[in-house]
Amino acid sequence: MTTIDPRTRVRRLADRAVGDRSVLDAVLADGAVGTLSTVVDGLPWAVPMLYARIGDAILLHGSTGAGALRRVAAGAPACLSVTHLDGIVVADNLFNSSANYRSAVVRGRLTSLEGVDAETALVALSDALIPDRSTEVRASSGKELAATLTLALPIEPGQWTVKARSGPPSAGDRAPGVWAGVVPLRTVAGAPERASWVPDDVPVPASVRALQQG
Amino acid sequence: MTTIDPRTRVRRLADRAVGDRSVLDAVLADGAVGTLSTVVDGLPWAVPMLYARIGDAILLHGSTGAGALRRVAAGAPACLSVTHLDGIVVADNLFNSSANYRSAVVRGRLTSLEGVDAETALVALSDALIPDRSTEVRASSGKELAATLTLALPIEPGQWTVKARSGPPSAGDRAPGVWAGVVPLRTVAGAPERASWVPDDVPVPASVRALQQG
Repeated sequence: MTTIDPRTRVRRLADRAVGDRSVLDAVLADGAVGTLSTVVDGLPWAVPMLYARIGDAILLHGSTGAGALRRVAAGAPACLSVTHLDGIVVADNLFNSSANYRSAVVRGRLTSLEGVDAETALVALSDALIPDRSTEVRASSGKELAATLTLALPIEPGQWTVKARSGPPSAGDRAPGVWAGVVPLRTVAGAPERASWVPDDVPVPASVRALQQG
Repeated sequence: MTTIDPRTRVRRLADRAVGDRSVLDAVLADGAVGTLSTVVDGLPWAVPMLYARIGDAILLHGSTGAGALRRVAAGAPACLSVTHLDGIVVADNLFNSSANYRSAVVRGRLTSLEGVDAETALVALSDALIPDRSTEVRASSGKELAATLTLALPIEPGQWTVKARSGPPSAGDRAPGVWAGVVPLRTVAGAPERASWVPDDVPVPASVRALQQG
């Protein structure tokens, strides 16, 4: 195994830890997919998952094989990482080029959904992805609810970290004639693509139209 | 610690493990930020990082404090998770609603940059974020290169996983009159924002204009 030359140093970006719980909630609310990490046989293990927050719990919905997710469910410590890439920071040199971002990491132990019934959880997860879609479709059946495993990661004081970078590049050389600045990035929804079995006179629902407005 | 009721079952999305190395390379090439996970004091630890691939190595660039990153650098096992959310899958019920995505997880031990000099690494990381920007700015100074710590995660057979979901929702009920389909998502670059010290007659460079075209 190679070790790192101690003469090298980590280059820190201008990131900033943010301590306000409302900022954590805002970072979580702006996304629907995070990376859940845990330890399996002493090694790091990670998987992308859909999530939603209800109060002091982050609900997680599996997008992986049952075996691996059960290891997490059995109570292993876990952390969820959520990152939004907000912009590309273009400096007048490579060293100061960077990214504007917001990120949250929440640490804890996964539990079952104490105090949250399966239907509430499924609605919250749906609303995180497609706000208000739950008002447009039938209620979930008992069979569907029984087949849904949603886990919760508690949000506890001292067990989460929010970091962010925003604004222009570090001044660098201010080299004459060299452009520097920020290219903002955002996620946009394209035109809805109707499933083949849906007649073309079925209107696009309000929840889907709202996604187009961002 | 709460354990999970064994009667509940994981709901699998229609994800599909993909075995072709070229698919891994494509998923990695479509992003610039991933989540690096490792184990610190027996607990999972994760941080978002910028990355770029050169051959069979993923280069990583710190966006965290030196202390934590040094723990990783000392040779702890790590995994990098990269996820692209490609679309929202809108079914005619909540249970079948989902997300289209591509994800990659690469597992291994971080090393220093064997066979890759610091300048090549810095150019690769810059090009991953802003293709060809490296041709528009001065070369990095020796001081800048010495202050840059870039780590490498090797890509080894059997040590990576790609998963993806694409296409329409599962058929569900095909409920009459209920819309179902996919809302595609993509990341777009907004108008470049010039840094305050750059005169307005300095043209926006080709690398930045190219980001607008996506």
